[in-house]
Amino acid sequence: MLRTHQLGDLNASLIGQTVTVTGWVARRRDHGGVAFVDLRDASGFAQVVVRDEKDFDPLRNEYVLQVTGTVERRPEGNENPNLPSGEIELITETVTVLNTAAPLPFQIDEHVEVGEEARLRHRYLDLRRPDPARIMRLRSDVNRTARELLHGEGFMEVETPTLTRSTPEGARDFLVPARLAPGSWYALPQSPQLFKQLLQVGGVEKYYQIARCYRDEDFRADRQPEFTQLDIEASFVEQDDVIELGEKIVKAVWSLVGVDVPTPIRRMTYHEAMQKYGSDKPDLRFGLELTELTEYFQDTPFRVFQAPYVGAVVMPGGASQARRTLDAWQEWAKQRGAKGLAYVLIQEDGSLTGPVAKNISDQEKAGLAQAVGAQPGDCVFFAAGEAKASRALLGAARVEIGHRVGLIKDAGPNVPASEADWAFVWVVDAPMFEPAADAVASGDVAVGAGAWTAVHHAFTSPKPEFAETFDTDPGAALAYAYDIVCNGNEIGGGSIRIHRQEMQERVFQVMGLSEEEAHEKFGFLLEGFKYGAPPHGGIAFGWDRIVALLAGTESIREVIAFPKTGNGYDPLTSAPAPITAQQRKEAGVDAKPEPKAAPATAAEAEAPATA
Amino acid sequence: MLRTHQLGDLNASLIGQTVTVTGWVARRRDHGGVAFVDLRDASGFAQVVVRDEKDFDPLRNEYVLQVTGTVERRPEGNENPNLPSGEIELITETVTVLNTAAPLPFQIDEHVEVGEEARLRHRYLDLRRPDPARIMRLRSDVNRTARELLHGEGFMEVETPTLTRSTPEGARDFLVPARLAPGSWYALPQSPQLFKQLLQVGGVEKYYQIARCYRDEDFRADRQPEFTQLDIEASFVEQDDVIELGEKIVKAVWSLVGVDVPTPIRRMTYHEAMQKYGSDKPDLRFGLELTELTEYFQDTPFRVFQAPYVGAVVMPGGASQARRTLDAWQEWAKQRGAKGLAYVLIQEDGSLTGPVAKNISDQEKAGLAQAVGAQPGDCVFFAAGEAKASRALLGAARVEIGHRVGLIKDAGPNVPASEADWAFVWVVDAPMFEPAADAVASGDVAVGAGAWTAVHHAFTSPKPEFAETFDTDPGAALAYAYDIVCNGNEIGGGSIRIHRQEMQERVFQVMGLSEEEAHEKFGFLLEGFKYGAPPHGGIAFGWDRIVALLAGTESIREVIAFPKTGNGYDPLTSAPAPITAQQRKEAGVDAKPEPKAAPATAAEAEAPATA
Repeated sequence: MLRTHQLGDLNASLIGQTVTVTGWVARRRDHGGVAFVDLRDASGFAQVVVRDEKDFDPLRNEYVLQVTGTVERRPEGNENPNLPSGEIELITETVTVLNTAAPLPFQIDEHVEVGEEARLRHRYLDLRRPDPARIMRLRSDVNRTARELLHGEGFMEVETPTLTRSTPEGARDFLVPARLAPGSWYALPQSPQLFKQLLQVGGVEKYYQIARCYRDEDFRADRQPEFTQLDIEASFVEQDDVIELGEKIVKAVWSLVGVDVPTPIRRMTYHEAMQKYGSDKPDLRFGLELTELTEYFQDTPFRVFQAPYVGAVVMPGGASQARRTLDAWQEWAKQRGAKGLAYVLIQEDGSLTGPVAKNISDQEKAGLAQAVGAQPGDCVFFAAGEAKASRALLGAARVEIGHRVGLIKDAGPNVPASEADWAFVWVVDAPMFEPAADAVASGDVAVGAGAWTAVHHAFTSPKPEFAETFDTDPGAALAYAYDIVCNGNEIGGGSIRIHRQEMQERVFQVMGLSEEEAHEKFGFLLEGFKYGAPPHGGIAFGWDRIVALLAGTESIREVIAFPKTGNGYDPLTSAPAPITAQQRKEAGVDAKPEPKAAPATAAEAEAPATA
Repeated sequence: MLRTHQLGDLNASLIGQTVTVTGWVARRRDHGGVAFVDLRDASGFAQVVVRDEKDFDPLRNEYVLQVTGTVERRPEGNENPNLPSGEIELITETVTVLNTAAPLPFQIDEHVEVGEEARLRHRYLDLRRPDPARIMRLRSDVNRTARELLHGEGFMEVETPTLTRSTPEGARDFLVPARLAPGSWYALPQSPQLFKQLLQVGGVEKYYQIARCYRDEDFRADRQPEFTQLDIEASFVEQDDVIELGEKIVKAVWSLVGVDVPTPIRRMTYHEAMQKYGSDKPDLRFGLELTELTEYFQDTPFRVFQAPYVGAVVMPGGASQARRTLDAWQEWAKQRGAKGLAYVLIQEDGSLTGPVAKNISDQEKAGLAQAVGAQPGDCVFFAAGEAKASRALLGAARVEIGHRVGLIKDAGPNVPASEADWAFVWVVDAPMFEPAADAVASGDVAVGAGAWTAVHHAFTSPKPEFAETFDTDPGAALAYAYDIVCNGNEIGGGSIRIHRQEMQERVFQVMGLSEEEAHEKFGFLLEGFKYGAPPHGGIAFGWDRIVALLAGTESIREVIAFPKTGNGYDPLTSAPAPITAQQRKEAGVDAKPEPKAAPATAAEAEAPATA
């Protein structure tokens, strides 16, 4: 080693000893014939006193030094109580410059403001800053904590393949040309879903993996083309078992940031979440539940409220919003695809003002505040129309209100995680299917082209009471699924899976996947289900999001060592990039694969496309 | 849970209790009105006694059962001392069939002989067999042991990207079209080498990762397109530090199979390994060192031995080999590209026979046995010609002899790891460069088109004494590199890296990489080196090979949950496979990328190819 001690280990107990340390020049202050250098390594800082001008003169910020010297007590009054090494300083005997540093594109500093693209392009400098360094250490600890817990619970880590088969109708797969089978392609897995289920068929019983997953999605803020999930699957379990294990994991990793998560965590049905919070990811750090007013306005003279659904959410103190703020809410709603956001203001005298107030009946006005639980000084926002979209709008308004009114205390630069608000909830009993027309990309794998598509994914079992009827009445069937939500973020989700071939085939039918397509795409899973697949279920945690929450950072980019920007570009390496004609030729990108059925014999299988 | 106990936990302490277990029917024996079912789960086996014919009649092998019953002592004489549950049996009250099983393509049995392709196609059945199940558990334990050790040593796990930039002149990269930048491609990393070095520049100091790596190589036995390495890098370390850490890891993981690896592990120079063993991966479980005879034969009348190098290896007892065996050795040598394998047989009376004996002088004959350390009854094999190729041939012959003569005791089906032979060695002081003409793919990344190429890889530092001269005399420079070899397998390798931009550029120059190419391909590394890169070094262990050695299995396919066959084909999912025209179009495979320099501004970088 080029050092005898880490800087963070220097303290008063070493006074009088000669030590050798290494690190980066964080700061240099010259005082006449002596310079004080703050030297930094991964463990911390120490003050180095350099007395020889020819030693300190060449030093610049971020030079890498090896310093041998004697640990001495700092002169009275010069102590720094914020540093473990704050009582001592290192009086140098020799200073060796291990490497120089050119002037930096930005300073290595806690407070420096620099654009994200510049930080990512020089991520190796960004990682020297205190906060990114802290987050990298946290992530490592989070991984370790989860693995240790799962090991203690008897789980086995299994690494599943990442060059695998395309499942072309899900979220888009990233594709990889197979040079040895020109014209054929591997796909990068959207999740280890099929493999972890096959491991259960294989008798592994308790599987986990911190797994890299890949989804080629369109630009969305804070998505990464590659991301990480803590992936878990077990045999002979029921919903309560997976939920209990999930709670242990949540409790363990949140304890790393000084937060005690009380368990059991509350459970809420999907129906209740949609009804009260307008979201399947309700943020329960604050109340402001939606009120359904459909019945209340059943005889209303107001055309807009003559709708299948009318609902409201209250903004405490919102009556004092300026006109332009209220106008901005209309814009806000329009950006979400709504026509606007109707509102009434409840004045201090109890009277209602605003456009809606002019249109509703006196009787409706009289009872409104009580019906929605509003006080004088509040603003009531309304949505009317189709229930799902209206609730979604109110749910989004609710969260926006929570932020604006200051009901939400996020962890962040000025709020340590231990002082932030945390609210966890399991959302259960989601519908098994939704009309394909309503579909949103919410699952692990979406397949089929039928009238219905899976809310979770095609491998989710119905709750036992819908086992017989889910295909004759898909709209009524509830899934044996559970999502865990933290502060309005879905941080994990899972389900009890289908383990019988016959039931899996019926689900594919509901989703409009023909027998041929099902065989073509998932034949290996259906084949596996023939040979004694055990009942099984599992969960996957969105690991990047969890670490971001723990770290008190908004973006998952902050918790990834080398992240990409929103459109999948890496400012550090400039990937993706063009390839050469030679590479393209070798990769077989332009070869025509011979159409070929699944191999019938071992000999065929050994040489699928090189023959 | 669908069970109260695992089968492996059933024992005499539970006698009299009612338990519920689950598992697979491993075997069923009918005895008149009663059936004995061997039920299997991940933890073990237990005997289940089913008294009701309507319960046991439908049962077939690999049905999945849930059984509730009473634990009772087996009748005297029926105990099975080989099972933890061997003293008891479960007298069933209720039997529920959780799933049925079709007739199996092969039996779930320790001894069944079945082709590998069939096993892989039904890997979920193969994994139920005792040995594959044992290996999966071992692999999980090996991962955990290494991670715990590294955590204890202060190392931090960092996950590096797998969608990254192509380095087009190394081993071939797997490529991934980037839909959001049509015509541009990501590459899957051959190793995290550049990222782990940039993490050192970033002040991480102690990094590790069990990393998935990708190399698109031509078919070679026992290579996988995706493989795993335990990847380690640290700052301010010297060779001895990395070696010491590597030994701790080796010791820890071998202890999992009951083997104590004595440390420190022997070190040998590359030169000595080539000279004595004809290999940079010497198998030191046995002697049989090569003898150089160039000087001995300096005046020989035998044309073949009038060569720049003559060497020999002795086969103990080899004089009794049949003529056709000796002929087969010639074939063996020809398959390795040699003309043949000259030999003499030393008869019991000390006389020499065989074709070579006729050609060499009497004096040469007289002293030969002593010169090579052979005894009467031995065979001496020779190679003559260019030193490197001749030594390689003798080195291969040496290993073959070791096997044939029974000097090598591999772990395997009949030899537990704890009773096998193990020999570890660090091979150090390898040449930094080799003539490009001689190059073999041996490193992490190969670059350049010059007369010289890196033996390890382009980021390996010269030993300090060659820092000034490596570019003026590349053939003489030794690398600051170390490989660890176990039983003739390279199981890990690493080096102290270059940390100065100027030295890295000189290495690129030696390798014939122009300044432009170097900037184009590794500009981000060279840029990082500008800003205070610390001295650093590391190692990567071939994790699949290590687990295979520990498991006592020849092929790394046995230690991968879902491996591919030699040509990259997955018999389970039939990947790779053709893609649809729609997928091809969406992926932008056929788009022409706009030629584009590295982005100059943040705004450009944010939208590199969607503009």
